[in-house]
Amino acid sequence: MIKVSVIGATGYAGAELLSILQRHPQVEIAHITSESHTGKKIAELYPHLNGIYNLTLESLQDIQEIGMDSDFIFIALPHGHAMDVGKMLEIFPVRIIDLGADYRFDNTEIYEQWYGVKHTHKNAPRVYGLAEIYREDIRTAKIIGNAGCFTTASILALAPLVRHRLIEFDSIIIDAASGVSGAGRSPKLGNHFPELYDNFKAYNVAHHRHTPEIEQVLENLGGEKIVLNFTPHLVPMSRGILATCYAKIKENVTASTIDAAFSKMYGNEKFIRLLGRGAYPETKFVRGSNYCDIGWHIDERTNRVIVLSAIDNLVKGAAGQAVQNLNIAAGFEESTALDIVPFYP
Amino acid sequence: MIKVSVIGATGYAGAELLSILQRHPQVEIAHITSESHTGKKIAELYPHLNGIYNLTLESLQDIQEIGMDSDFIFIALPHGHAMDVGKMLEIFPVRIIDLGADYRFDNTEIYEQWYGVKHTHKNAPRVYGLAEIYREDIRTAKIIGNAGCFTTASILALAPLVRHRLIEFDSIIIDAASGVSGAGRSPKLGNHFPELYDNFKAYNVAHHRHTPEIEQVLENLGGEKIVLNFTPHLVPMSRGILATCYAKIKENVTASTIDAAFSKMYGNEKFIRLLGRGAYPETKFVRGSNYCDIGWHIDERTNRVIVLSAIDNLVKGAAGQAVQNLNIAAGFEESTALDIVPFYP
Amino acid sequence: MIKVSVIGATGYAGAELLSILQRHPQVEIAHITSESHTGKKIAELYPHLNGIYNLTLESLQDIQEIGMDSDFIFIALPHGHAMDVGKMLEIFPVRIIDLGADYRFDNTEIYEQWYGVKHTHKNAPRVYGLAEIYREDIRTAKIIGNAGCFTTASILALAPLVRHRLIEFDSIIIDAASGVSGAGRSPKLGNHFPELYDNFKAYNVAHHRHTPEIEQVLENLGGEKIVLNFTPHLVPMSRGILATCYAKIKENVTASTIDAAFSKMYGNEKFIRLLGRGAYPETKFVRGSNYCDIGWHIDERTNRVIVLSAIDNLVKGAAGQAVQNLNIAAGFEESTALDIVPFYP
Amino acid sequence: MIKVSVIGATGYAGAELLSILQRHPQVEIAHITSESHTGKKIAELYPHLNGIYNLTLESLQDIQEIGMDSDFIFIALPHGHAMDVGKMLEIFPVRIIDLGADYRFDNTEIYEQWYGVKHTHKNAPRVYGLAEIYREDIRTAKIIGNAGCFTTASILALAPLVRHRLIEFDSIIIDAASGVSGAGRSPKLGNHFPELYDNFKAYNVAHHRHTPEIEQVLENLGGEKIVLNFTPHLVPMSRGILATCYAKIKENVTASTIDAAFSKMYGNEKFIRLLGRGAYPETKFVRGSNYCDIGWHIDERTNRVIVLSAIDNLVKGAAGQAVQNLNIAAGFEESTALDIVPFYP
Repeated sequence: MIKVSVIGATGYAGAELLSILQRHPQVEIAHITSESHTGKKIAELYPHLNGIYNLTLESLQDIQEIGMDSDFIFIALPHGHAMDVGKMLEIFPVRIIDLGADYRFDNTEIYEQWYGVKHTHKNAPRVYGLAEIYREDIRTAKIIGNAGCFTTASILALAPLVRHRLIEFDSIIIDAASGVSGAGRSPKLGNHFPELYDNFKAYNVAHHRHTPEIEQVLENLGGEKIVLNFTPHLVPMSRGILATCYAKIKENVTASTIDAAFSKMYGNEKFIRLLGRGAYPETKFVRGSNYCDIGWHIDERTNRVIVLSAIDNLVKGAAGQAVQNLNIAAGFEESTALDIVPFYP
Repeated sequence: MIKVSVIGATGYAGAELLSILQRHPQVEIAHITSESHTGKKIAELYPHLNGIYNLTLESLQDIQEIGMDSDFIFIALPHGHAMDVGKMLEIFPVRIIDLGADYRFDNTEIYEQWYGVKHTHKNAPRVYGLAEIYREDIRTAKIIGNAGCFTTASILALAPLVRHRLIEFDSIIIDAASGVSGAGRSPKLGNHFPELYDNFKAYNVAHHRHTPEIEQVLENLGGEKIVLNFTPHLVPMSRGILATCYAKIKENVTASTIDAAFSKMYGNEKFIRLLGRGAYPETKFVRGSNYCDIGWHIDERTNRVIVLSAIDNLVKGAAGQAVQNLNIAAGFEESTALDIVPFYP
Repeated sequence: MIKVSVIGATGYAGAELLSILQRHPQVEIAHITSESHTGKKIAELYPHLNGIYNLTLESLQDIQEIGMDSDFIFIALPHGHAMDVGKMLEIFPVRIIDLGADYRFDNTEIYEQWYGVKHTHKNAPRVYGLAEIYREDIRTAKIIGNAGCFTTASILALAPLVRHRLIEFDSIIIDAASGVSGAGRSPKLGNHFPELYDNFKAYNVAHHRHTPEIEQVLENLGGEKIVLNFTPHLVPMSRGILATCYAKIKENVTASTIDAAFSKMYGNEKFIRLLGRGAYPETKFVRGSNYCDIGWHIDERTNRVIVLSAIDNLVKGAAGQAVQNLNIAAGFEESTALDIVPFYP
Repeated sequence: MIKVSVIGATGYAGAELLSILQRHPQVEIAHITSESHTGKKIAELYPHLNGIYNLTLESLQDIQEIGMDSDFIFIALPHGHAMDVGKMLEIFPVRIIDLGADYRFDNTEIYEQWYGVKHTHKNAPRVYGLAEIYREDIRTAKIIGNAGCFTTASILALAPLVRHRLIEFDSIIIDAASGVSGAGRSPKLGNHFPELYDNFKAYNVAHHRHTPEIEQVLENLGGEKIVLNFTPHLVPMSRGILATCYAKIKENVTASTIDAAFSKMYGNEKFIRLLGRGAYPETKFVRGSNYCDIGWHIDERTNRVIVLSAIDNLVKGAAGQAVQNLNIAAGFEESTALDIVPFYP
């Protein structure tokens, strides 16, 4: 039995964490915090948690007590805030799983350039929190920079092809779409119901911050500099990400080689369901679960491979992944609390 | 450990049953059936179940074997079909939980009149499967007629007021709305996406079949003949029922008497969350869970009480209720597999 | 050719007005105003108007010039603000159509009580802007208090039954549901996309401000004090209102008398489509149009009549109605610019 | 005043045609047909048309009479059926606008290969019905093969870049998404409301039939063979298409050259709104209208241009385009009946 705390518990990712941890037999919630709602019960903000959690939101000002009182701390704050918390907790034995971007980059200059924020914890002992690729590093990490939502879907789709160098690295295009919960719980015009309903749009073309994150991991796998296009879209739905990834197939690479690359890399992964060549993942087939469903298609006319991957942005793209990382880091069975049947229909 | 089977596993209620039973530590699925998809794997029809269930759909023709091989059988067939199955299983020790209407009526003439079908199992040893009202009877029942979706929301909203005779029985109006999953998985024009999107409508005004079911239970509680209005509406969403119930408050009945009636009846019920007087249940606060959330309002201008209740039509309104009934009947902890955090947002 | 101005053009009702007026051959837009966006082009706020309107938003501070420069002024401000504008314009020959509540009440005390605002223009020469009932008064009115959205649907559904005294006045219950555009364009948590999607709820039970407005008009028609229940619900869709209205039928009133009451009152109304007894209006069948579709049902078990009416809340419930009132007041053909085919699917 | 008929009036494109033609002062509807609903009134199938059209559906068997009685015939039948109608009408002076694929291909072998149907009217005197590119040919055409929905959005997005040879032709990738009305009105599981709600998916990857249609037109413009990737997605909404188009920018091509290409080609086009470089079209900004909104982005990291275009699939993608073609062919003002304000919100 370990004690965990959630810093920034009132966003969607924080609330999802609480939902998942309710299923976890080896975890006890020690503290949850919110600066804007300190003193309130969590169920006042999230009535669906009525009768399930009686926790009171505390303030980050007590971070050192929280640190001493916790084995693991999840941070679900906007980027730029987690590193301050991380530094303050450096001397405590507590381990950190940050759901934001602060600890995702090997090269903090890239972080500073894309996020426009000075990085104040550059030498942090951190690993990238995507278990299917960095599982061994996660086991012992002090700080885990939980992978982003679009990045998880994109990396998992492309990793086998990049690792085995089956595609032209300069030909990668990722066209992705997300439900609106990915934009957080703060109301704004763009996410106001009547504006978004029966509407579809792209945003942040050519400069979305998940771009360098995807590139970093693919470069690690492929052993070369990779520059790619990533385009996010907003779907008038609540949950889910679908990434549609394009790349030129290298000469002499066959369809069965591509199939084998997926099987080899993910054949034993519990949370990756390989639907196979010619298959179509749908976001609803993974909704609410920690699964990443993957299908791929080969276009012989253009010699491109198109990989489709679907995740729930709040689960495998955030809170589920964080619990998966916790399980690995704490030495629990990796799927504890994550054996969730997708919510359908 | 008991063995259960699901007859008619390919409708939404059947699939939801499988989802819930996956969490049940004391239940093993013995058989699942479908006449139109015999021989297929369940995940071919419901890809969200990929990697979770490897079950093959069998045919009802083997019902006797299935009966011998099961401790409990859930029937999720359209009305008119369960009673045939029920009769065939009469001699086996297996117990039945029917999610349809065949075993819901004390007076099968009412069934015949509203459903337009001859009842062929009139003397069946049955109870009405709404645990909050008939828990004791459910414990030992051979056949449980699981309460309907609209009926569950409506009865739970009104039961305390009727039992304590706080309202005029001839003044009851129930105005309810449901998500589209309540209409089943068979495609038809009325439920075709573009037709229903950005659309709202009433249907079956004055003759919906849940009307006599609600009346039957309220009559049992109130000790008098009750004739009421029930109007269903279709909401362009997937899941959820909200019932808005109106009734004239009897003379000299005070607000606090009404409050007390709710507390008294439901104070210890695990799946009923009394939000209180002046509160607003929302379907999303119970989505995916077995909860029924209830709030009530008193209009002093008209001397009416308005009770609002929200459920997930496929959980507390179908499969969750069925598992709750199973738990009671099998002697398990009533909330086993049902401690589901509502799926939000 | 007349000149009209729109005060408060940046809400949904204001934008809808502009959409409709673009079709009007006898109307020229003189001024549009917005205090928070003064100086901006309307298409900056509503990109769908790109290339259609090149108007610049002005400030209300120039109201006297606007008044002198306009034949008609539409006011689409939050309640409490129109009466100040109305007073300032009293001495100008301009006529006013207010889309808010300030000029809807015969008895301003009722307004003050329900809206919690002091009425500062009590002796205003005003009429209630619902053409099907007050057409003659509208022709010459100085100020028209355009009927509200829920009120339009509710009054039109019940008016024939009240006018002909076919129902028990103390038995009226109106259960209505609206799309989210009715709540305006200001983002807030309750209308944030992920919160509302796949969600349904009631609000303002027993104290919604459209209640006294409905009562006022029905009292005028029925010649008696009427106190009724009105309950609004929020539907996860953008547009549309459906009102489901219940009342006890008076003794000896037959179905055909009820049918006749509807035909008599609305037989020649261009914007009311009587679908008939047993019919089901759907909000999508009137979406984008100025129609009010009406169907009714008689429940012989409870002796109640249930009337269903559907409108588009922004058209017949706001901007379309305002243009209909303009046409009447300006002496144009009543349906000018309003011969809109509903937007389907 | 001309007489037009609609063959296959009961699909969504047919119904949209009727909606638009109601606004057309120079058009009278002569006949509408449906084989499955012969003899019914159109408003029985589409209640939103109640009181607007009193037309009765006839049978195609009377095609010759219909031909003699019409100046123009719109065909809105599934592919493979229009060519039979076209042949039968060859000898009549009537002109044809086919909303399906039968008359879209210069090379009918490509049609046969992608559609799997023998082309029976190969020598038909036809033009491709996309006014912004083939306006002059449309004026006098006997048969107009109205451009497809995805193709319209895709071609209009890429045409200026291809015509001026600013991009590498072998680098084109089109990632597009459509609302569900694009799939027609026939109910099927994939478009059943609960299946699609809160869901997003790709389909027909690498083999959607709009691919060769896009290639044909771009080849005509670019003067070279073009093979590209086109991937459609399904969005849980009713209307709208967004195409996100990627291509490598040729060496020495600057951003301002790209800007100029768009302005030059579309500067005077009434239905194309150039939102400009860095802009984001949204499907809702064009919903219900004949507009195509276009924005483009240059990614200097990858040297790709990303063009975004949005249309309403049933208007500029089908019925609106057809009326635009009619106006050109009949010598009317091109925007007659098409000056529709987008339907927002």
